[in-house]
Amino acid sequence: MSLFLRALRGEDTPRAPIWIMRQAGRYLSEYRALKAQHGFWTLARTPELAAEVTLQPVRRFGMDAAILFSDIMTPLPDMGLELEFKPGPVLERPVRSAADVARLRVPSEDEVAPFVPDAIRLLRRELGDTPLIGFAGAPLTLATYAVQGQGSKEYEEFRAFLRRDPETADELLEKFTATTINYLRAQVAAGAQAVQLFDSWAGIHDLATYRRFGAPAARRVLDALADTGVPRLYIAVGAQHLYPAIAELPLEGVSVDWRMPLSACRSALPGRTLQGNLDPAALLGDAHSLEREATAVLRDGLGGPHVFNLGHGIFKETDPDMVARLVGLVQGFERHAHDVEAPVPARDVA
Amino acid sequence: MSLFLRALRGEDTPRAPIWIMRQAGRYLSEYRALKAQHGFWTLARTPELAAEVTLQPVRRFGMDAAILFSDIMTPLPDMGLELEFKPGPVLERPVRSAADVARLRVPSEDEVAPFVPDAIRLLRRELGDTPLIGFAGAPLTLATYAVQGQGSKEYEEFRAFLRRDPETADELLEKFTATTINYLRAQVAAGAQAVQLFDSWAGIHDLATYRRFGAPAARRVLDALADTGVPRLYIAVGAQHLYPAIAELPLEGVSVDWRMPLSACRSALPGRTLQGNLDPAALLGDAHSLEREATAVLRDGLGGPHVFNLGHGIFKETDPDMVARLVGLVQGFERHAHDVEAPVPARDVA
Repeated sequence: MSLFLRALRGEDTPRAPIWIMRQAGRYLSEYRALKAQHGFWTLARTPELAAEVTLQPVRRFGMDAAILFSDIMTPLPDMGLELEFKPGPVLERPVRSAADVARLRVPSEDEVAPFVPDAIRLLRRELGDTPLIGFAGAPLTLATYAVQGQGSKEYEEFRAFLRRDPETADELLEKFTATTINYLRAQVAAGAQAVQLFDSWAGIHDLATYRRFGAPAARRVLDALADTGVPRLYIAVGAQHLYPAIAELPLEGVSVDWRMPLSACRSALPGRTLQGNLDPAALLGDAHSLEREATAVLRDGLGGPHVFNLGHGIFKETDPDMVARLVGLVQGFERHAHDVEAPVPARDVA
Repeated sequence: MSLFLRALRGEDTPRAPIWIMRQAGRYLSEYRALKAQHGFWTLARTPELAAEVTLQPVRRFGMDAAILFSDIMTPLPDMGLELEFKPGPVLERPVRSAADVARLRVPSEDEVAPFVPDAIRLLRRELGDTPLIGFAGAPLTLATYAVQGQGSKEYEEFRAFLRRDPETADELLEKFTATTINYLRAQVAAGAQAVQLFDSWAGIHDLATYRRFGAPAARRVLDALADTGVPRLYIAVGAQHLYPAIAELPLEGVSVDWRMPLSACRSALPGRTLQGNLDPAALLGDAHSLEREATAVLRDGLGGPHVFNLGHGIFKETDPDMVARLVGLVQGFERHAHDVEAPVPARDVA
């Protein structure tokens, strides 16, 4: 079994497997060339193109896992929510009322973004031993976006909506939950060997709000995948204050951002494989600072199962040579050669 | 002495004083009228206009403190960094090199944004017993903005800069520190009765980076105000992971955002007056949800000295009637009528 899947099963692997959030994307010239030709939305919805883009970084750098090239908004059109990418997703008609929610369809496993399972089937043939991660947006995050209508710093429309009409918010979350279950089950049936649930905007909410709206929906999605046996990963950025609730979710792994050291995250998220947490800005520094920061993360991760990743998506300004350097560094770091009990130095930036 | 200043001196006041971050601003029609006439930058730099805008919410709602109407970028032009507001501040020439930093001036107490002390002197005559809060951006936050050149979600230019050239970052922080000391000392000399240091973007950094670059600069500013005797407040949003370092700063009060309950913040920030932490989105709900959420904050604040505020700036969409309702509710809540030992219910959003 691959190192990635072994680490997600809780094994203290000889070295930490590595993949990188948004590893298929704009920092790669071969991606930019395809995107210039086809546009983002066509890339995401054409199985051959999505598969090709997914493979690009794995071919170039030899990451230990591939993640399907897609967007968390991909299933929305099949629910009746039309999108445009300009370049971020913008909803033609944001959800604002009970009538808007009532109008939403819950597509079946066969109906929801069928090009995604098609891409997964193509990829499994190409990827060989490299495991493939499927993913979806978590219901709270999809609802946040659907009500706001587009990316936002504060998502105040959604935060107002939760207060003005919590019952309608519940119905909206229910439709996203049912859709996300179908969407992820279809991905697993097509061959995804792990899934990551992106609760990208959960961190804007306080713990009580997250416990009331976000955690129960995420739990239903994760529970509905239990019988598939695939490991379940979860990510929320800037969400350290939510860890008491995230620690209770049925998850094998949690992606953590760079704000809190892995060793502190281990105490907050006991029994989970941790994934992370190099600051993506470390790839914008020089070779020396990258080595220092990446090594600090590797050492800080020794206390339990660890999948190396960035704490958030890679910046489009990143030099691919720095990615190659990082992958080599992580793949050359033998965990068992280091003493877990030795004091781990604080990450020293300067 | 006013309730606000008593609370900042650590007194368990009979009721929590209230003011609201960005209380002078776009949610008020009288502000929008003045801004349409003069533009933001003229309002901020004309003492009579800045004073008038500062007074508007106090006159209308009777908050327990006024905060000078200004912007944290106000001192930058006197350092040689020209700004435009479109509508957020944009630097004509961002700081990117050692030569850019060497070129920056450190204006004296008399030279740095002199219209601000002038506005403070006007305000002290008008405000009577209502205390006036002066403020400035913290050096780390000013440096973040100066390098990035404008508002950003990720501030990746600055995060790269810290890694590529930490020595130049130190020199940049030193110039902002010296300027901020002069700027705040001038505000106190003119009559500001408390100061708040805004480290608005500190939360994007991990604790080690904050300890290396942010905390020492903030400490120097705060130490340089110790002899004035004015209480010192500090705010960083989304910064719960930095509380171990913030707890060591020489501060009388800390503004905390809505993500973490006040009672948990008290444990993380012992011995400080807490200021906060209603979710600004609570003012976008209805009267019922506002009362429930505000009361939960008031009860959660009973464990020590508390200044009621929002956890972040008020949204421009806020109905002023909701603000009036909130001020009345907070000013009518007698702290000593409630049992601190009683279990405080979790904030219930729905």
